[in-house]
Amino acid sequence: MTLRVRIVGTGLIGTSLGIALSRAGHEVSLEDPSPTAAALARDLGAGRLASSETAPPELVVVAAPPDVAGAVVAEELRRWPDAVVTDVASVKVAVLEEARARGGDLTRYAGSHPMAGRERSGAVAARGDLFDGRAWVVVPHAESSSTAVELVRQMATDAGGTVSVMSPTEHDAAVAVVSHVPQVAASLVASRLRSIPESAAGLSGQGIRDVTRIAASDPQLWTQILAGNAPAVRRVLGDLRDELTEVIGALEHLEQGNGVGAREVLARVVAHGNTGHDRIPGKHGAAPTTYAVVTALVPDQPGELARLLHDVGDAGVNLEDLHLEHGLGQPFGLAEISVLPAVAERLAEELQARGWQLHG
Amino acid sequence: MTLRVRIVGTGLIGTSLGIALSRAGHEVSLEDPSPTAAALARDLGAGRLASSETAPPELVVVAAPPDVAGAVVAEELRRWPDAVVTDVASVKVAVLEEARARGGDLTRYAGSHPMAGRERSGAVAARGDLFDGRAWVVVPHAESSSTAVELVRQMATDAGGTVSVMSPTEHDAAVAVVSHVPQVAASLVASRLRSIPESAAGLSGQGIRDVTRIAASDPQLWTQILAGNAPAVRRVLGDLRDELTEVIGALEHLEQGNGVGAREVLARVVAHGNTGHDRIPGKHGAAPTTYAVVTALVPDQPGELARLLHDVGDAGVNLEDLHLEHGLGQPFGLAEISVLPAVAERLAEELQARGWQLHG
Repeated sequence: MTLRVRIVGTGLIGTSLGIALSRAGHEVSLEDPSPTAAALARDLGAGRLASSETAPPELVVVAAPPDVAGAVVAEELRRWPDAVVTDVASVKVAVLEEARARGGDLTRYAGSHPMAGRERSGAVAARGDLFDGRAWVVVPHAESSSTAVELVRQMATDAGGTVSVMSPTEHDAAVAVVSHVPQVAASLVASRLRSIPESAAGLSGQGIRDVTRIAASDPQLWTQILAGNAPAVRRVLGDLRDELTEVIGALEHLEQGNGVGAREVLARVVAHGNTGHDRIPGKHGAAPTTYAVVTALVPDQPGELARLLHDVGDAGVNLEDLHLEHGLGQPFGLAEISVLPAVAERLAEELQARGWQLHG
Repeated sequence: MTLRVRIVGTGLIGTSLGIALSRAGHEVSLEDPSPTAAALARDLGAGRLASSETAPPELVVVAAPPDVAGAVVAEELRRWPDAVVTDVASVKVAVLEEARARGGDLTRYAGSHPMAGRERSGAVAARGDLFDGRAWVVVPHAESSSTAVELVRQMATDAGGTVSVMSPTEHDAAVAVVSHVPQVAASLVASRLRSIPESAAGLSGQGIRDVTRIAASDPQLWTQILAGNAPAVRRVLGDLRDELTEVIGALEHLEQGNGVGAREVLARVVAHGNTGHDRIPGKHGAAPTTYAVVTALVPDQPGELARLLHDVGDAGVNLEDLHLEHGLGQPFGLAEISVLPAVAERLAEELQARGWQLHG
C-alpha cells in the first residue's frame, strides 16, 4: 500500500525518514521553515517539495524539535482534516499536552519515537538506513483511533524500525531511565574532570571513558529533551540522589571511624548496579547472553586488527562483540573478542597457533 | 640489575607481577596465606615459594587486598629490616596511615598503584603482560627515602608499567575522580533499571550500555576500595550531588511552569560535561585528537568485520579506534571506524568502491 506522506521538518530525522519511505515506495512531500533545508532534503532523495504536492497527505510526520513539535502537530491536524498525524520527538507527554492545549482532532494523532540519532545533525547527515534495526516506539494516547495507530506502525516498519507500542507516560518513564538519566550522569561525572590536574586526568582508563562517552553530546538539544521530559527525569534523578545520599552518608561514617553498617550500604549499591545491569538486553534484542572474552594484543599498525579478525573468521567463529582498549604510551592495544562460551577455548587455541599473544 | 623481590599475596596482581618480574630476570619469591594459591602462582611461572628462599629480599611487594595492605606493609617492614617495601593497593592514604599506626621504619616504604585489573580475579587469571603499557603510579610519602622510591620505580618499569609519581593525597584525589566516582555513578544509573518493565529496558541503546558497563563489577572488591578512599570519594560525590541537586531543582521549576533560568542550568551542566570529557587524554596518553568517524554496515556473519578491516588496512589507513553498535532484531551491526580526519574521505571512497554500505 502506497501512502502519501508529508514530512514537516527536514533535519536529520525528517530527511532520513523521507529517504527511507521513498525507497519503500511511498510518495513523500517535504516542508521546512528553511527553503534551503527542504531543497537539500529533496536533492538527497527524501521526496519532492510540498509546494508541488497534488493531493492531500494521508499521513503527516512532524519532525520538528521537541520544544515546538506539539504546536506543529496541532497545526497539521487542523490543516489536513482527513490525515493521520504523528511526530518523532524523543519526549511524548509534553508533545501530546501541547497539541491538546491548542485544540484539534486528537483521534487522528498518535505519537512515535524512533530511537535513532547521530552525533551530527541536519539533512546533510541523513541516511536512508538510519532506522534499520533500531527500536521505534509507537505511542498512542487514549483517544488515538486504531486507524491512526496502524498507519503510524506501518510507516515505522516501512522505514526499517523495530516497532513496539507504549503509552505516552510509559514511554517517557522508560526513556528517562534508559536515555535521559544516563546522559545527566555522564555529564556530571565528566564535569568533575574540569578541576583536576592534568596528571590526574592522565590516569583515565577505559572505565571513565565508557561512562563519559555520551558526555560529549550537544547541550542545546539535551536542554530541550530534558526540559521536555522534566517530570519523569526529575523522579528518576530523585531516586538516584536518594541512593547517592546513602552512599555519601556511609562514606562520612567511615571517615569518622564509625563504620557499622556503612560497608553494607556500599556493597548493596554496587550489587543493585549488578542487578540493573543484567536487565539490559543483549545483542539483537534477545535475552542477555554471557559471552566468553578472548583478549589479544594487537600491534598498532595498519592491517593488524584486520588480520586478527580475519583469523577469527577463518576459525569459523562468529564475533559477537569487540571492544578495543588502548594502553598509555604503548604501540599496541588490546582487542577483547566476545564469542559464545562454547567456542572460546578453540578460538584461543587457533589464535595462539597463528602467533597471536593472548591476554586471557 | 637483578633484584631479590618477595611478593606477598598471589592473587591476580601479585601473580601477574611475579611472572612479569621473573621474565625481566629478577629473583622472585612468593608467599600467600593460602598455600594452594602460592603453589599455583609458582606453577604459573611467577617465582619460587618463599619457604625455599635463601637470602633476604631487597624489595617486598605487598599485593594484599586494600583493607589489610597497611597491616601487612608494617609487618614486612619489621620482618625485613633492610628491605624496601611497597604495595599495589588502589588506595594510598589509608594504607600509609594504617602502616604508620602499626609502627615500623616508614623511610623504607613507598606505595604504588598499577592501574591494571581484569573482570576476573585470582592467580588463575594472571598474565605476565597485565601491566604492559598501563599507568603505574609510584606514591612516595614525605619520609620515603630516595632509594626506596627508585627501587619501586625500577620494579614498576621492569613489570611493563608507564610510571608517574604522585603524593598519597594527590593519588587518592585523582582515582576518586577517574575511577571510584565513575564506578558509583555507573552503579546508581544501572540500579534504576531494576524497577522498570522489560519493554522499557528493551529500549536500552548504546548510550546506557556504555555508561553502565562497569556496573557489572564485584561488590566486595568495590566496597573495600570505596571504604579505603572514603574522604576523597565523599568530597567528589558531594560536588556531584550539588550539581545534581541544581538539575533536579531546574526540572522542578520547569514542571511547575516556572522555568526562568532553568534551561540555563540544564545547558550548563551538559556543557560542563563537554569540557570535562575533553580533558580525557586520547589514545597512547597523547593530547585528545578529534578523529573522523566512518560508519559501515556489517552483516552479522563470520568474517565480515574482518573483511571490512582488511579493506581498511588495504587502503593504507590506520584505524585509531573502533566501536561496534548493534541494532535490535537485525542481522547486522554498525562499525564506527575512527581515523585521522585527513584520510577519512579517501577511506569512505575506497570502502564504497569495495561495496561497503556506509552510514556517514
